[in-house]
Amino acid sequence: MPLDLKSWIAHQLERVERALDQWVSVDASADLEHHAPVDLMAAMRYAVLDGGKRLRPLLVLAACEAVNSGLKHDYLPIEECDDELARRGAIGAVTAARASDEAALRAACAVELIHAYSLVHDDMPCMDNDVLRRGKPTVHVQFGQASALLAGDALQALAFELLTPERSVIEPVKQARLCRLLARAAGCAGMAGGQAIDLASVGLQLTEEQLREMHRLKTGALLQASVMMGAACAEAVPLAHAALHRYGAAIGLAFQVVDDILDVTADSCTLGKTAGKDAEQDKPTYVSLMGLDAARAYAQSLHAQALQALADTGLVDTRILQGLADMVVQRSN
Amino acid sequence: MPLDLKSWIAHQLERVERALDQWVSVDASADLEHHAPVDLMAAMRYAVLDGGKRLRPLLVLAACEAVNSGLKHDYLPIEECDDELARRGAIGAVTAARASDEAALRAACAVELIHAYSLVHDDMPCMDNDVLRRGKPTVHVQFGQASALLAGDALQALAFELLTPERSVIEPVKQARLCRLLARAAGCAGMAGGQAIDLASVGLQLTEEQLREMHRLKTGALLQASVMMGAACAEAVPLAHAALHRYGAAIGLAFQVVDDILDVTADSCTLGKTAGKDAEQDKPTYVSLMGLDAARAYAQSLHAQALQALADTGLVDTRILQGLADMVVQRSN
Repeated sequence: MPLDLKSWIAHQLERVERALDQWVSVDASADLEHHAPVDLMAAMRYAVLDGGKRLRPLLVLAACEAVNSGLKHDYLPIEECDDELARRGAIGAVTAARASDEAALRAACAVELIHAYSLVHDDMPCMDNDVLRRGKPTVHVQFGQASALLAGDALQALAFELLTPERSVIEPVKQARLCRLLARAAGCAGMAGGQAIDLASVGLQLTEEQLREMHRLKTGALLQASVMMGAACAEAVPLAHAALHRYGAAIGLAFQVVDDILDVTADSCTLGKTAGKDAEQDKPTYVSLMGLDAARAYAQSLHAQALQALADTGLVDTRILQGLADMVVQRSN
Repeated sequence: MPLDLKSWIAHQLERVERALDQWVSVDASADLEHHAPVDLMAAMRYAVLDGGKRLRPLLVLAACEAVNSGLKHDYLPIEECDDELARRGAIGAVTAARASDEAALRAACAVELIHAYSLVHDDMPCMDNDVLRRGKPTVHVQFGQASALLAGDALQALAFELLTPERSVIEPVKQARLCRLLARAAGCAGMAGGQAIDLASVGLQLTEEQLREMHRLKTGALLQASVMMGAACAEAVPLAHAALHRYGAAIGLAFQVVDDILDVTADSCTLGKTAGKDAEQDKPTYVSLMGLDAARAYAQSLHAQALQALADTGLVDTRILQGLADMVVQRSN
């Protein structure tokens, strides 16, 4: 990992951890009429804090920064290419960067809350029945099933609360757009829908097309939404928007392919969760469908698609998004 | 029930049922990239359609209509009391009524989706373990626990999707405000928080104060939010807003007191769910705490508080909200 990517990630992770620690807390509800019950909040914090790669928040923040870096000169309409306008554009970009910062941090945390809640529910006995997550007992093991259920539910609601702060610098139109993107990605035509297909497909022989559709919803939708929420924070122009959409789709799928590869090649300790679960539960995976080598080649080709999409954005600086695409494909857990 | 309240309710119920039928469907996701999986949607529709009193949607719609009826003359600032301004005010009110209509119907359905998802999760074996709801097998009995869990999760997401339509007549500021109200009422400092307190208090002796706090979150928050979302759709002025807030708090609490009364006085058939569960599970209730007669008197006093709050709104026509308050206290199921 190049040094500047590493320090960018370290800096952003610190911001995200601090923000999550602040927003997922009883204190955060102090301005509300009612405080959140302490026990429920403990389970919510256990599910969210001190764990996870925070890939989705990093994607939100990186996409926002990339859009804020502005469009390359060749991508600007000709009439805007004189020096005076370029200068004014640059000043506008700085102001926009500040204004989008608060939105991006909230969006980053909101998408992580949705991810965290989905893991809590997914680990429950009636779903994957997993007892280990990120090297710790899962929420239902630690707090009981009922609390795990409620903590997941409350985390989802909190995600939308984070996106709609009162008396905020974030324009209402942006708040509404972020809610829309997140709700769609989390719901029946996104993550929850993908999990339902996953559930229904245990023991079945899926085609590659069906497997891709399942993963596009189950994991891909939220990863892609992370990119698009970041783009929305910085108000990407249509060309950049469309290319980032393709980038998000490619890394969303790549993430799952690599997940399937790691499930057979890594051990539980490295993985931080129980390895070999998919094969044991007779779940269809890219590895079971195409074999290990072909799955690896597929991950590489999705990686190349993601990089091409970044080149197509016309944005000045997409290096962080590029680095995150590398991370998704080269990760070991 | 007076004839005009009855026909108002019948008309609104028909609108809400039609809207829910349309929005909780695979077709509704046709404009999205991905369709919702058919199985998941079946469980979601089972949980939402053809059942329930729809009290929360009715409160949203009634509050919106009441605010749109305008302020009484004595409540208008003196400088606005000449005839010309009153006339213009009336025209403005008609336009506002049309513009708020779409928002109120979406808000009505969104709040019902949150209510429906909470029942699905609440009925699950790790929570109340109930097999009967509205005279039908509960969702997890019908579709299995994993599907019930996912259907609940997807219903919550869909609620926020409904509130944030793209290219809509609903102003973004209103969309964001509705999301904020709903997210707070559903989350850790609202419904989910109240359920967590409920869970933790089984077998405990609560004070009346603690019991009230639990119910204010568990049931009250969402009922009150229904009223406030309706008020937000029609952009209530501060005076009306504050009084409607008190109305919402009073009927929210009254609803739960009556629920506790019905749990011991009604049979399962009338109730449409298993009666006597609270006593059996040794849950604290208003009846167990204060006795049946005092609980009844308390419900009546909350009813009176609700009516007083309506009188304080200064709104021209609050008859429907009044009728709904009567319904809450006089209901038999």
